[in-house]
Amino acid sequence: MTDENRFAQTPKPPYFAVIFSSSVTGTDPDGYKATADRMIELAAEQDGFLGIESTRDEAGFGITVSFWRDQDAIRRWFEVPEHQEAQKAGKAKWYDHYSVRICQVERNYETGAR
Amino acid sequence: MTDENRFAQTPKPPYFAVIFSSSVTGTDPDGYKATADRMIELAAEQDGFLGIESTRDEAGFGITVSFWRDQDAIRRWFEVPEHQEAQKAGKAKWYDHYSVRICQVERNYETGAR
Repeated sequence: MTDENRFAQTPKPPYFAVIFSSSVTGTDPDGYKATADRMIELAAEQDGFLGIESTRDEAGFGITVSFWRDQDAIRRWFEVPEHQEAQKAGKAKWYDHYSVRICQVERNYETGAR
Repeated sequence: MTDENRFAQTPKPPYFAVIFSSSVTGTDPDGYKATADRMIELAAEQDGFLGIESTRDEAGFGITVSFWRDQDAIRRWFEVPEHQEAQKAGKAKWYDHYSVRICQVERNYETGAR
């Protein structure tokens, strides 16, 4: 079942991560999907973006981790107007609950048939 | 669809996170599920464990984030013999590819109807 594109190709640490955990309400699934896809595309256009990994189970619980060069890049990303609009819509209708954690990645390793 | 138990109740930062991203082969799903459940139970028994969040989509791509008091607690967790056995089995048959990132959580915030 491997899809290697699901794994972010990040540089040697240190770099930064935003861990976004959320449970969706199930309201407006098409609008949610379109916006979620657009946010991944928009994030990838930002200076300092390093990659993203995202998954959600059938119960609606998801984790998205985006990777960034530094904290300034993260701060700017949260201030992008189109992203702010999406955050408002997310709070208003798509998410029951979410949590955001900003981290510094100190070590990473991986394995596999890549 | 909310299940608030899916969210870890972590303390004020700083604390540490292990971001484990993986794609499963689909081999031995019952053995995989039993071991994955057991590892969550075993992690929760370790000194310094703060919580865990985990999800996997239908394509077999999953992200599990466990939270820890300090880097020593993480080091000890990777050295627990039953966890080492599970890591070996994971490499041998359950995972196509995985990545592990060790991070220091610097900020967190959340929202929702909790």
